[in-house]
Amino acid sequence: MAISNIRYGEGVTKEIGMDLRNLGARRVCLMTDKNLSQLPPVNAVLNSLAKYGINFQMYDNVRVEPTDQSFLDAIKFAKKAEFDAYVAVGGGSVIDTCKAANLYASSPTSDFLDYVNAPIGKGKPVTVPLKPLIAVPTTAGTGSETTGVAIFDFKQLKVKTGIASRAIKPTLGIIDPLHTLSMPERIVANSGFDVLCHALESYTALPYNMRSPCPSNPINRPAYQGSNPISDVWALHALRIVAKYLKRAIRNPEDREARANMHLASAFAGIGFGNAGVHLCHGMSYPISGLVKTYKPKDYNVDHSLVPHGLSVVLTSPAVFTFTAQIHPERHLEAAEILGADIRTARIKDAGFILADTLRKFLFDLNVDDGLAAIGYSKADIPALVKGTLPQERVTKLSPRPQTEEDLSALFEASMKLY
Amino acid sequence: MAISNIRYGEGVTKEIGMDLRNLGARRVCLMTDKNLSQLPPVNAVLNSLAKYGINFQMYDNVRVEPTDQSFLDAIKFAKKAEFDAYVAVGGGSVIDTCKAANLYASSPTSDFLDYVNAPIGKGKPVTVPLKPLIAVPTTAGTGSETTGVAIFDFKQLKVKTGIASRAIKPTLGIIDPLHTLSMPERIVANSGFDVLCHALESYTALPYNMRSPCPSNPINRPAYQGSNPISDVWALHALRIVAKYLKRAIRNPEDREARANMHLASAFAGIGFGNAGVHLCHGMSYPISGLVKTYKPKDYNVDHSLVPHGLSVVLTSPAVFTFTAQIHPERHLEAAEILGADIRTARIKDAGFILADTLRKFLFDLNVDDGLAAIGYSKADIPALVKGTLPQERVTKLSPRPQTEEDLSALFEASMKLY
Repeated sequence: MAISNIRYGEGVTKEIGMDLRNLGARRVCLMTDKNLSQLPPVNAVLNSLAKYGINFQMYDNVRVEPTDQSFLDAIKFAKKAEFDAYVAVGGGSVIDTCKAANLYASSPTSDFLDYVNAPIGKGKPVTVPLKPLIAVPTTAGTGSETTGVAIFDFKQLKVKTGIASRAIKPTLGIIDPLHTLSMPERIVANSGFDVLCHALESYTALPYNMRSPCPSNPINRPAYQGSNPISDVWALHALRIVAKYLKRAIRNPEDREARANMHLASAFAGIGFGNAGVHLCHGMSYPISGLVKTYKPKDYNVDHSLVPHGLSVVLTSPAVFTFTAQIHPERHLEAAEILGADIRTARIKDAGFILADTLRKFLFDLNVDDGLAAIGYSKADIPALVKGTLPQERVTKLSPRPQTEEDLSALFEASMKLY
Repeated sequence: MAISNIRYGEGVTKEIGMDLRNLGARRVCLMTDKNLSQLPPVNAVLNSLAKYGINFQMYDNVRVEPTDQSFLDAIKFAKKAEFDAYVAVGGGSVIDTCKAANLYASSPTSDFLDYVNAPIGKGKPVTVPLKPLIAVPTTAGTGSETTGVAIFDFKQLKVKTGIASRAIKPTLGIIDPLHTLSMPERIVANSGFDVLCHALESYTALPYNMRSPCPSNPINRPAYQGSNPISDVWALHALRIVAKYLKRAIRNPEDREARANMHLASAFAGIGFGNAGVHLCHGMSYPISGLVKTYKPKDYNVDHSLVPHGLSVVLTSPAVFTFTAQIHPERHLEAAEILGADIRTARIKDAGFILADTLRKFLFDLNVDDGLAAIGYSKADIPALVKGTLPQERVTKLSPRPQTEEDLSALFEASMKLY
């Protein structure tokens, strides 16, 4: 497995100009979004670029929860100039958009679908060399600074899909917890739920040696290769941090220890799931986000309806882990214990229920919307949600338990109300 | 921090020919030692190279516990042909020799001392591009497949020193536990002690944000940067595996679960110490090995006197951790607990003694020689041992507690007898 380069510490963003100079960069593409472009994380980067005399152009038009159209817009920007390095300052949306821009600008004759995951796209392996990309995450959730994945909404199909290749993994992730201090409450919560599910899903994913088909040439192995002894270390470690710090980080923006630890946990969980993969919570989340009707979450300053990624992922988690627990019940029970359940008298066959109850309590304490119904879905939407999940094979096939369309229907139905 | 690419699994060595083909290698330098050249790990590599038609030349003259002369011999071999990739099959000696060969063949006009650690050498940063190196470890100790370090005996100074740069880190480590099944008992034990000390030293090393001087440009930061939240994860995880599996792996060559886990622990501890560094056990081990008189360890088929690296490291560990515990007593106590101590009623000020006693018991159970006296040293040798430790600043300055020459004398003296 390939792991990432990260640098951690309060204020380390100020070194980015030196890093770019060390890389010999002469024309840098700086990507961010409109909100962030006025905020301290981008200012810190701009100051460092100025100090070290780094020539750059800024693209601040990244869409929160990007689409194929918004990716193409960023790609067009990247193609116009001959950039020799990229810097992404933002959450997963910004970092993912920047990965796509770097990829397609480095492979200018490729069609957009060439690298998009099969079966939606062609899923071609990336063989062109990319430019260095430094990612500066400003949320504590995506772990995108450590992964080779870029996710977007494919508008015409109304599903989320993505590009997955080790080649698009950032060269360096700069984990500067100062950037998390300006995050509003619900963004801390929703991005933290993404960390929670990255950890739980990668720890319970199909083991790496049970995946099939198993490509005979290592170069053809997927980025998501199933749970393995290394991703397990990261998943459990991230889960312990979530258990200890997520509530504190949400409730108190001044709790620097909690916010710094969640910022690290995001990267740790990213290293884990970036190798092991995720499964049903993520696979089912893509249509939940993609089919959004009118939901506008608190604390997100955007002009379109939106189900935040972390929220779309966590709402199905009680149902999903009830469903998957029969395969690795001991791992489900261990996760429940880490999240605070008393398992001393628990029976192994109840592992799924125990983890689900623990998750429900965790979400209730954090004022999470009461299931898919609370964000605008009803039973009538289930066929469309299932249809949107089917193409997410890349992740759904990493579920430890195979699932039929009926299973998916039942999982969506069980997720309509949580409490 | 930079982490490594590793691939793990029984039999994965057979893929190495494909990896080299994927890298476009046309002329490979295969390095190993005379013993191994007849054994299954090298055979597995040769079979794969033949299957995929990879052209190679073999150098099997690596010295166990290499010297400047043996490094130079390997470098000469590497310079003669224009190799475009390297494969190292062996323990730390082989992998380290191969790193040096790759480095100096890629930088043909450099003087040998240019890259050797200061103050013995010039410690220049490596700026030349190296060829890909695939490391196939056959012991479970060094972790060299994951680090940017190459250690050798500098004969004229009678000290061990090395080369440390991220640039010489292997491109890929192939962790195939099948290779550990042919390891004799004492090689399992001594290489396991190296893992134990990598974990303990990196977990107790000076924290990364207390190191000085702190180079302002990230490119000048040392490979060994002090303990940090990421290396801590690896160190603790490796220590838990050592506690659970080392005795089993030593006592029963058929215990595949134990040997496989120790093989992984070696890589895990390597990732940890390769970033955090080691301190006094390693710093003091170099003269213990370098000044060897007539000691010939069981199970090592060599024609020269030799203190195996892992043994030279572990013999001072009770004294060292008694000395360092006053700085991070809670970490020392935590380590003792992982290694089996009952700390429920322990006082924090006794942390060092408790860890030292735990280590002594661990070593006694494993029939380890009773201290430096048992491998041929006496009180009269202490000044020379101290003198040999002084140039090891690269690691000794990572000790959480600074040390005088008198302190070092006392540590060697306390290590003469263990039980």
